[in-house]
Amino acid sequence: MRRATAFLTALILLCTLPAATAQVRHEIHFPDLPDYRTLKCDFHTHTVFSDGVVWPTVRIDEAWRQGLDVIAITDHLEYQPHKQDLPTNHNRPYELVAGRARERGILLIRGAEITRDTPPGHHNAIFLSDVSPLETEDFYAVFDEAQRQRAFVFWNHPGWQGAERGTWGEWQAKLYEKKQLHGIEICNGGSYYAYAHGLALEKKLALVGNSDIHDPSLETERTRTPTEHRTLTLVFANEKTIEGLREALFAGRTAVWYQNQLIGREPELAAMVSACIRVNPPHHRAGNRVWVKIENLCELDIELQRVGEVGPGRIKLPARATALVRIDAPAEALSAGLPYRATNFLTGPDQSLSVKLVVPDR
Amino acid sequence: MRRATAFLTALILLCTLPAATAQVRHEIHFPDLPDYRTLKCDFHTHTVFSDGVVWPTVRIDEAWRQGLDVIAITDHLEYQPHKQDLPTNHNRPYELVAGRARERGILLIRGAEITRDTPPGHHNAIFLSDVSPLETEDFYAVFDEAQRQRAFVFWNHPGWQGAERGTWGEWQAKLYEKKQLHGIEICNGGSYYAYAHGLALEKKLALVGNSDIHDPSLETERTRTPTEHRTLTLVFANEKTIEGLREALFAGRTAVWYQNQLIGREPELAAMVSACIRVNPPHHRAGNRVWVKIENLCELDIELQRVGEVGPGRIKLPARATALVRIDAPAEALSAGLPYRATNFLTGPDQSLSVKLVVPDR
Amino acid sequence: MRRATAFLTALILLCTLPAATAQVRHEIHFPDLPDYRTLKCDFHTHTVFSDGVVWPTVRIDEAWRQGLDVIAITDHLEYQPHKQDLPTNHNRPYELVAGRARERGILLIRGAEITRDTPPGHHNAIFLSDVSPLETEDFYAVFDEAQRQRAFVFWNHPGWQGAERGTWGEWQAKLYEKKQLHGIEICNGGSYYAYAHGLALEKKLALVGNSDIHDPSLETERTRTPTEHRTLTLVFANEKTIEGLREALFAGRTAVWYQNQLIGREPELAAMVSACIRVNPPHHRAGNRVWVKIENLCELDIELQRVGEVGPGRIKLPARATALVRIDAPAEALSAGLPYRATNFLTGPDQSLSVKLVVPDR
Amino acid sequence: MRRATAFLTALILLCTLPAATAQVRHEIHFPDLPDYRTLKCDFHTHTVFSDGVVWPTVRIDEAWRQGLDVIAITDHLEYQPHKQDLPTNHNRPYELVAGRARERGILLIRGAEITRDTPPGHHNAIFLSDVSPLETEDFYAVFDEAQRQRAFVFWNHPGWQGAERGTWGEWQAKLYEKKQLHGIEICNGGSYYAYAHGLALEKKLALVGNSDIHDPSLETERTRTPTEHRTLTLVFANEKTIEGLREALFAGRTAVWYQNQLIGREPELAAMVSACIRVNPPHHRAGNRVWVKIENLCELDIELQRVGEVGPGRIKLPARATALVRIDAPAEALSAGLPYRATNFLTGPDQSLSVKLVVPDR
Repeated sequence: MRRATAFLTALILLCTLPAATAQVRHEIHFPDLPDYRTLKCDFHTHTVFSDGVVWPTVRIDEAWRQGLDVIAITDHLEYQPHKQDLPTNHNRPYELVAGRARERGILLIRGAEITRDTPPGHHNAIFLSDVSPLETEDFYAVFDEAQRQRAFVFWNHPGWQGAERGTWGEWQAKLYEKKQLHGIEICNGGSYYAYAHGLALEKKLALVGNSDIHDPSLETERTRTPTEHRTLTLVFANEKTIEGLREALFAGRTAVWYQNQLIGREPELAAMVSACIRVNPPHHRAGNRVWVKIENLCELDIELQRVGEVGPGRIKLPARATALVRIDAPAEALSAGLPYRATNFLTGPDQSLSVKLVVPDR
Repeated sequence: MRRATAFLTALILLCTLPAATAQVRHEIHFPDLPDYRTLKCDFHTHTVFSDGVVWPTVRIDEAWRQGLDVIAITDHLEYQPHKQDLPTNHNRPYELVAGRARERGILLIRGAEITRDTPPGHHNAIFLSDVSPLETEDFYAVFDEAQRQRAFVFWNHPGWQGAERGTWGEWQAKLYEKKQLHGIEICNGGSYYAYAHGLALEKKLALVGNSDIHDPSLETERTRTPTEHRTLTLVFANEKTIEGLREALFAGRTAVWYQNQLIGREPELAAMVSACIRVNPPHHRAGNRVWVKIENLCELDIELQRVGEVGPGRIKLPARATALVRIDAPAEALSAGLPYRATNFLTGPDQSLSVKLVVPDR
Repeated sequence: MRRATAFLTALILLCTLPAATAQVRHEIHFPDLPDYRTLKCDFHTHTVFSDGVVWPTVRIDEAWRQGLDVIAITDHLEYQPHKQDLPTNHNRPYELVAGRARERGILLIRGAEITRDTPPGHHNAIFLSDVSPLETEDFYAVFDEAQRQRAFVFWNHPGWQGAERGTWGEWQAKLYEKKQLHGIEICNGGSYYAYAHGLALEKKLALVGNSDIHDPSLETERTRTPTEHRTLTLVFANEKTIEGLREALFAGRTAVWYQNQLIGREPELAAMVSACIRVNPPHHRAGNRVWVKIENLCELDIELQRVGEVGPGRIKLPARATALVRIDAPAEALSAGLPYRATNFLTGPDQSLSVKLVVPDR
Repeated sequence: MRRATAFLTALILLCTLPAATAQVRHEIHFPDLPDYRTLKCDFHTHTVFSDGVVWPTVRIDEAWRQGLDVIAITDHLEYQPHKQDLPTNHNRPYELVAGRARERGILLIRGAEITRDTPPGHHNAIFLSDVSPLETEDFYAVFDEAQRQRAFVFWNHPGWQGAERGTWGEWQAKLYEKKQLHGIEICNGGSYYAYAHGLALEKKLALVGNSDIHDPSLETERTRTPTEHRTLTLVFANEKTIEGLREALFAGRTAVWYQNQLIGREPELAAMVSACIRVNPPHHRAGNRVWVKIENLCELDIELQRVGEVGPGRIKLPARATALVRIDAPAEALSAGLPYRATNFLTGPDQSLSVKLVVPDR
């Protein structure tokens, strides 16, 4: 009887205890490309070691829980509002959590935010081996040091302090000329900068999008939607290693996941859309009319707009779900492929991706 | 300006209109087995043609939306509370929606519920070609007719009118002897019948679990959880056809998905658990300690209890998520496999499945 | 031991059984006005007795669950697609569920949809005592009969078959002249008709908004949001009775709850906004700066835009929550009231409500 | 045209930007009692100033967002794992955020956790004016100092390091004798200690329940349920001030909100249940049968079990919703009141509250 009661008590506890959520990871579903692994990355995060409000461990736990593969902790070099309590120690956030990242299989990158008023504004340097030498007064000297450390450098949130202050000026021009500027944040948290997007394409700089998170993230599987999620950079890498990541970033093989959009260059977006959309053979035909199941494997609600004459005018493929699409067309047209635009796969500020919906015979 | 306004209005509509949910399907994630397709089936549903409260089309739309592959509409033969308004027509529900099912790729099965007070209680006959001849007074004559039509017959919710009334008696014994009884509902909606479960194993009858739904189903992707979902039968079939399904049912290759449990026979459950759990090679080792990511591809929160000496005492693998598991063991123990029980994969009323967690080297 | 086990089993059942949701009602939070009760009403719903797909009981159960006070079942008189199976019986839906409505305290109104091609289009007549006499060929004779029965009549979804076909023509003009047209649906399900809204104001017709639901409603407390909800009419009545409702409708005391908007006339919207927003005395003052908690008691995310010079430019008051607002202003300005517009309380197609935010001293 | 486009762009931004959630507060719904305000309090939280992982500001923001009225920050005096980076400064967390708390109307209490191995275990002292003098080696000297500062002292998570180590011993006995121990945590996070509950009742110590939170809280309105929520203490105070709170705590007017239970003393629980349950007059009577709407205003799913002969055997009143209850009884029985037990209002480890359901006539 006593054992039954003990068992009973144990059972009540089991039934009522909320699941420990810290250890559970929900993957972000963007498939790998035929030639590359798709890494989900945030290259811009803060901790109490500058103006963030969490201990660095929290950034690792969030990354694990939310399905990220890579994060950089990039505390401000020059803005240290907590230093009265927590003396400046630029390398410390990385050192504190390198082990925790390793245990969870998260690639942790040592970084820093170089923080000047706009212009020239803020820049992140990542892949550093030692952050401290970057704290120096001369603006250009900082980037010389970053280059010595083989850092990847990008311009942060260009439009942040007003569009006119965030334009390409002599500062960026000079860094660019010295090959010390390699990417631009076209998205930062809830903001998108069309101007920066155009610049990145014109100057062949890597497209980057990040959270710039200072607070704890409240995002969980239960609250994430195609529209509300952490802004991230997808990097298409040969392998999930620091070197694989660095190579892909310098080669510009990235896309930015921002609200219900994927923003990138044509080759990567085309490969991604092919990997995401699975058109099944028609499961029913009545004369010239077929019913087709189209699966969408990714986190976006994909929006398609007809370019040609055949097929529905608009097709919405909800995230990680299956849509039933009725098409009135002869079999030949289906296997030749129906021309559409994926209006939320952006290849430029006003440009969306062409796709062909090929309905296989069998 | 007028066009801009029109566009604006269109845009507002696009932004604000809730997505049409009727057409979106969310799959139920139980993977196929190495030798069989895993079909998600509900063999017990009602419509206005007996005591249900929905037109038969609703059952098809729900099945599509909720990721089912197969449904049977099984209105009561003898209980026709709406007949004053809707004259009895036993074949009509099937005929009304056969086309709609075909368009959505749902296998629709013609069925009926043979409705007698307990004992003998209710039985479902499915795969009928004509329901009407089953409406006959003599209890045994109904089943003779069902057999003529090659029906698969199962006993519904045996404990429904009280445990003592739902015991195996002369009625079931006689049907069984004549090979006219092939399965038992061990689960029906929110109820599980341990006695029926034992019977099914003893008599080698197929294990069946169904919703027995009368109301509209409010279940959507947003409200489904591992614990709250439609009770279903998984059928492991050679192919997704009526004949494939029939063969599998008569062979007893089924499992019942009930709350956070999967109830079946050892071979199918073992194959399912192998297909669901993906143990990655350790991504970090520190001395005798490794960190392992274990993915769970299915809809159950899988619960594992240690049998041997090595590994955590309990492991919870949340549905469709990844767990981080720390194991203190030498490499040999990992590749040999750690013995566990999957406590919510039931092979009998008091029996759970043995599993071996093999941690691959690489 | 046996009793412990029985208790254990009971407990497991209690822990695991999903709550029966059919009986639970979640109120819709729009407060009563100082002089009127606020009734939440849907005057346009269908069942299997015309082209809906649910038995009439489902409409009562939904209304209860979703917090409605009043529904009308308004099956099509002339469109009877199920009549081959379910012979036409216009009064039957009301009769079938009048008792069920009474048990739940739902006011059920007998109604019908008069269904002609556009123009003249569809019209609902509610408060009928006998639906059958309205099934007559002559268009105007139908409305004469409705008038004889003291029906309230409104024009349904005017823009539904294209804006040009839904304009005010001789048909509506003649009904209006004979005082046989009393309201207009300015919203129907996911659509809003600006033209109809203008018309209603010009002709002093009651503003009506309804679901026009044919399918089962999947809306539950867990899925309802300020943007996604059943389109309803709020009626401001002296009492919750058929006569109270009728008086208020003929007097035009209504508002339409459509997406994240409330559309009505100035007196009712002004009273509603006053009843919804509760501004607390400042709980902290630092020089000219105060912090104020503003509670919003209703289902809308209320959006305020500053008209004057004082206060934040925009204030969002989330539904049924509390916002913290910092205001930089002297005490006199606060107690005098800050002029704002409530941009989602519409008094006309392009007109929103003026409100004054008075911050009490104490 | 240009303005239309600008407006369009603004609109797109408005539609797509996720709402800023940091500023929105969702109240916790436990009504005030006739004689007291009901304050929602957490007296046990940590920050980076001991072994927590958030900056103190996060605790204020969480409290605001989650509807709390009062929090104490109670970092460990003797356990300072971050001190290498963040030198010990016991008063600092309070000082850093006192202003932020004032702006939000949160009562912030200066506290500390006195951290010794068990026995004697951990104790919290709150209402301190200066934390530093409590850091002293002699165990009893700490409490003498706390007493000098008029602190309220409670024993933390007594069963935390094993039931046998958490029993009442000489340490607690001595503190108790010196009137230096005033309360006991009967709940801490996901744990309930029946032994401590019994002790508290026997010794007339205040019942306290807290989160003991170290991580950021992910709880939002969207994820909070009657079962999963922050463990809190409800304090029934004359006023929402530090002195009001202190008086109520020393007088023992508290209840603990733990999972789907409220644990307290009879007078407060009885007053709370009366304030939460609103029984409406029957809205329909058919012979001896009435239908009654019962509203539950609070966050618990209230569970009622019949004691007498009349009324349903069990009634579940879902949180902040309305239940429809059918009662078969004559009018006299209803107005006399039906005796029930509220099985999740606990007045002792094995004792639940008696309630009378009075159904008013009118």
